[in-house]
Amino acid sequence: MRLADIDSPEQLKKLKVKDLEKLAEEIRQFIIEKLSVTGGHLAPNLGVVELTLALHYCFNSPEDKFIWDVGHQSYVHKILTGRQDQFDTLRQYKGLSGFPKMSESEHDVWETGHSSTSLSAAMGMAIARDLKGDTNKVVAIIGDGALTGGMALEALNHIGHEQKDLIVVLNDNEMSISPNVGALHNYLGKLRTDRHYRKAKDEIEQLLYKVPSVGGKVARTLEKIKDSMKYLLVSGVLFEELGYTYLGPIDGHNITELLESFKQAAQTRGPVLVHVVTQKGKGYKPAELNSDTYHGVGAYKIESGEQVKKAGPPGYTKIFASTLIRLAKDNPNIVAVTPAMLGGSGLNKFIETYPDRCFDVGIAEQHAVTMSGGLAAEGLKPVCAIYSTFLQRGYDQVIHDVCRQNLNVFFAVDRAGLVGADGETHQGVFDVAFLRCVPNMVLMMPKDENEFQHMIYTAIEYHEGPIAVRYPRGNGIGVEMDSDLKLLPIGKSEVVREGKHVAILALGPMVQVAEKAAELLLKEGIQPMIINARFVKPLDEKLLMSLADQDYSIITLEEASVKGSMGSAVLEFYAEAGIHDIVVENIGIPDYFVEHGSVDDLREEVGLTPNRVAQKVMSMWPRRRQRA
Amino acid sequence: MRLADIDSPEQLKKLKVKDLEKLAEEIRQFIIEKLSVTGGHLAPNLGVVELTLALHYCFNSPEDKFIWDVGHQSYVHKILTGRQDQFDTLRQYKGLSGFPKMSESEHDVWETGHSSTSLSAAMGMAIARDLKGDTNKVVAIIGDGALTGGMALEALNHIGHEQKDLIVVLNDNEMSISPNVGALHNYLGKLRTDRHYRKAKDEIEQLLYKVPSVGGKVARTLEKIKDSMKYLLVSGVLFEELGYTYLGPIDGHNITELLESFKQAAQTRGPVLVHVVTQKGKGYKPAELNSDTYHGVGAYKIESGEQVKKAGPPGYTKIFASTLIRLAKDNPNIVAVTPAMLGGSGLNKFIETYPDRCFDVGIAEQHAVTMSGGLAAEGLKPVCAIYSTFLQRGYDQVIHDVCRQNLNVFFAVDRAGLVGADGETHQGVFDVAFLRCVPNMVLMMPKDENEFQHMIYTAIEYHEGPIAVRYPRGNGIGVEMDSDLKLLPIGKSEVVREGKHVAILALGPMVQVAEKAAELLLKEGIQPMIINARFVKPLDEKLLMSLADQDYSIITLEEASVKGSMGSAVLEFYAEAGIHDIVVENIGIPDYFVEHGSVDDLREEVGLTPNRVAQKVMSMWPRRRQRA
Repeated sequence: MRLADIDSPEQLKKLKVKDLEKLAEEIRQFIIEKLSVTGGHLAPNLGVVELTLALHYCFNSPEDKFIWDVGHQSYVHKILTGRQDQFDTLRQYKGLSGFPKMSESEHDVWETGHSSTSLSAAMGMAIARDLKGDTNKVVAIIGDGALTGGMALEALNHIGHEQKDLIVVLNDNEMSISPNVGALHNYLGKLRTDRHYRKAKDEIEQLLYKVPSVGGKVARTLEKIKDSMKYLLVSGVLFEELGYTYLGPIDGHNITELLESFKQAAQTRGPVLVHVVTQKGKGYKPAELNSDTYHGVGAYKIESGEQVKKAGPPGYTKIFASTLIRLAKDNPNIVAVTPAMLGGSGLNKFIETYPDRCFDVGIAEQHAVTMSGGLAAEGLKPVCAIYSTFLQRGYDQVIHDVCRQNLNVFFAVDRAGLVGADGETHQGVFDVAFLRCVPNMVLMMPKDENEFQHMIYTAIEYHEGPIAVRYPRGNGIGVEMDSDLKLLPIGKSEVVREGKHVAILALGPMVQVAEKAAELLLKEGIQPMIINARFVKPLDEKLLMSLADQDYSIITLEEASVKGSMGSAVLEFYAEAGIHDIVVENIGIPDYFVEHGSVDDLREEVGLTPNRVAQKVMSMWPRRRQRA
Repeated sequence: MRLADIDSPEQLKKLKVKDLEKLAEEIRQFIIEKLSVTGGHLAPNLGVVELTLALHYCFNSPEDKFIWDVGHQSYVHKILTGRQDQFDTLRQYKGLSGFPKMSESEHDVWETGHSSTSLSAAMGMAIARDLKGDTNKVVAIIGDGALTGGMALEALNHIGHEQKDLIVVLNDNEMSISPNVGALHNYLGKLRTDRHYRKAKDEIEQLLYKVPSVGGKVARTLEKIKDSMKYLLVSGVLFEELGYTYLGPIDGHNITELLESFKQAAQTRGPVLVHVVTQKGKGYKPAELNSDTYHGVGAYKIESGEQVKKAGPPGYTKIFASTLIRLAKDNPNIVAVTPAMLGGSGLNKFIETYPDRCFDVGIAEQHAVTMSGGLAAEGLKPVCAIYSTFLQRGYDQVIHDVCRQNLNVFFAVDRAGLVGADGETHQGVFDVAFLRCVPNMVLMMPKDENEFQHMIYTAIEYHEGPIAVRYPRGNGIGVEMDSDLKLLPIGKSEVVREGKHVAILALGPMVQVAEKAAELLLKEGIQPMIINARFVKPLDEKLLMSLADQDYSIITLEEASVKGSMGSAVLEFYAEAGIHDIVVENIGIPDYFVEHGSVDDLREEVGLTPNRVAQKVMSMWPRRRQRA
């Protein structure tokens, strides 16, 4: 049976192990070819081909529930559940999602995107099954990195206690150490019974230095990820102590071994942990050699693996890193903290220059935020780099630890706004609403990459409490970069175009949308004022008052939830000031979860476009004149 | 030296162990006497008298940093750092806070309230110390319950990895098992090397049943808290594996032992964990016998321990429990989930009736929310009971797992609004702002306890997605309870008093404030309409339109952050609808962290009073007439 003939996991059941092995090869080629055009999460999916085949062979989806933690490794699952023909549209607007999606298939029983959620979901499903008197299996597939997130540890604890039938497949894909897992595993066995703890600790560190690594300072940081908790998790003892039957470690590319283990797991009562060791990028040399680079890719040449890079202005992430490195030179108080976003945030550059002043704490947003608070409490200037969507995980810590104590933490909120192909789990659209209601917080967003560097400088030099800069994913617009950094006055916006009657108050890159709208409007003889808001909190109240005095109508424009964000703040301001006869209209992300697609497609969908803004201005223009 | 002579920890250093023991007795008496009048966290503080004395004896606060996790056990620390004479004002308005507070003393270097934050803060301080080249010690004191929160586990992992000098004092005060800790500890030692895991598991459960307990079904639930993770933590092996030097277990009421351990900890390089076993309520018989009841107390009679109960209408928590029990009888889909708020939420009553349908998952808000999602995904109706302030910890899970997948989870958000004596760490004032910006969420609040039961019923019968009811801490107002439950139409508010020109849209118990304001206003010949909003999301748009049509001015009134909450939603609605000439003014919690005090004092401070509302109405009244 050929891959093309498989449109349901049922068909797998008739196959022999050898057939499955052949199928695995076909699936690999399918993924390598399809992703070379569309891009996507290449290395993680190549790593789970046999694992996914074995799961669908042993269990009966969708009666048995598969929950894919993080979810970007669900391509093989999608291929086996009738979605092969949609891979040309992967991660594209209205196309196949890069994550599990209930609306795509009955085999997707839970949607993921953020890490470490699978165990909690599985536990809910296991409890429900038992209460309903059903007998299906529940299987959570979780990576070693995700397992050390606080949320997963909470679930691990609860599951072990309750002793429900539930299977955890630990996909241990830390490629850089996987060749040594056996050695480490044995070593840890010895360590566990060794009374001379400190000596053992030294030895393990020596052992670690023998692990082949990519070299240099970055390598040392990567090694840091091989941290203690991980070793504990990799060794079975922890799981047994916690109440799990531990099976493993199993070669995740050996289908026979996988099938045996899953069969055994299915027959075991209570929670079972199957420890599977896989290699990210397996079967595609470029990805095997550099699984980090090939974790998520754009289009690439299959032969060489060379990725098709789009030329363009420097990205925000790059500006963030270079500006921070520049400032850290003369300011020893600057330290950087990030929860597992070292590369994504650009801090991998920072840590090369300042290895002692940068901390990747792993998937641990809560800890990252409060630890930043601790650093600030002692007079340092921590820069806590977290994507907008992941900052949701550290929200209580932002409120309770940082803002409540008014500590000088600088939150670098990358990927704010629509992020594109990752879709609704990753859109950074709530941060404005959930941050601006917290006392003491200052919140800003730059209109372009040049202003961004000044905002970074401003945030570093701000000593009155917490301050956050949100900035978009991707490239700047190619403006000239000032060589000198300058301080932006807190709460002061910038008029970028003078106009009449209608003012567009735009946040961040929406300033460009407003400018394009103005070009359209000029043709109609309409001249809107355009204001670069810069600050959501505090608002530029002086400017807002002056707009009211001059009888302007106002359109607020932001790539953030229209409920509760900057537009709402402007309305509140006028209500509070007792100015009730001003016309304010808000444009933002409407009140639904925006799916995947290019940022341009998504802006078109939600109406964050020059046309829409122009229409809005025109609709206000005559009315305003009528009133005047 | 007598306790009264001690106004700084420096003075302790001259004392001998015997003097410290005497002092401990004096401190106990001081606490028992003072709290018998003011109330406060009695049992936790009686448990840490010797521990705190020993810490201040061995270390040099404030150069050495003490970080008190949760913080309600910092009374002894306050007594020893010059705040004895303020204990008559404990937890009262403008009086001594029940938690560490930087503004009170230089010895309070970090403020706490929510659990599990201390390790992250300590880690930040340890890193800062090393970067600054200082040599002070950093000591986090954390309870066994708080240590199993996901955030603490994240920190534990990172600290173990980084190997900074940092001391974790594990205050193991699970009173119900403490007499047996030795036995369990030994038993665990055996367990760790036992290959026959399952058998051992059975044995440990038998052992658990021998532990003296308070009896009945609640006892079985309490026993659940003695879960696997806890055993792992209590045994030193986990800590050694994670990179800590483990010292213990130590009798937390033996000053000599404590001093020796702390000295040793101070001399050890790298992270150290000192495992101290204490008894909650130690030295006060009523509290020793029932540490749960005496965890946080109101005033009580010293002799008997009898707490002075205020008579009053049934509390919201009680209504929640009884209504849920009533509904669960005929609806087998109802299940309850709470992260360590079994008693606080009233679910201890529910679990007695439905032991298989109620899950206390420990301090694990993130897990609780997503597990509720998993239950809902399988067709059950989970009720996830979390206080407003703690729901901040599960915010990402509310967005990413529950609302994004539009799952039928009912969030019972207790302690919403101002909570009083616990102060700024516990005020439930952000939930309206942070929940209403999330798509698919329905959010309501009842005006009184009778409406609350109908809202519970409505939430249970709602099958379109997530729904949240926020409700206040404390008692209802004594209204008659309908015997039949009824469904409230989603998004429909209730006019409770007809009026003219000005409408007060009040949320929850603010309806009563509005009614009192109306009484004041009637004397002036002013008749405001009063609307019980019921729903923040969706708003009653029909009513809002009709108010606009009738040229009403509107005052919104809510015990929630004025930034981003219901008032803001009303402004957004009119802006969106293109109605720009309506007068809307918002009253809510202003943009700062509100400290502790009685709810009445705090409402007075922030202006949520009939007088303030009446003034606002009067200020709008003539203007409105002028316009009309």
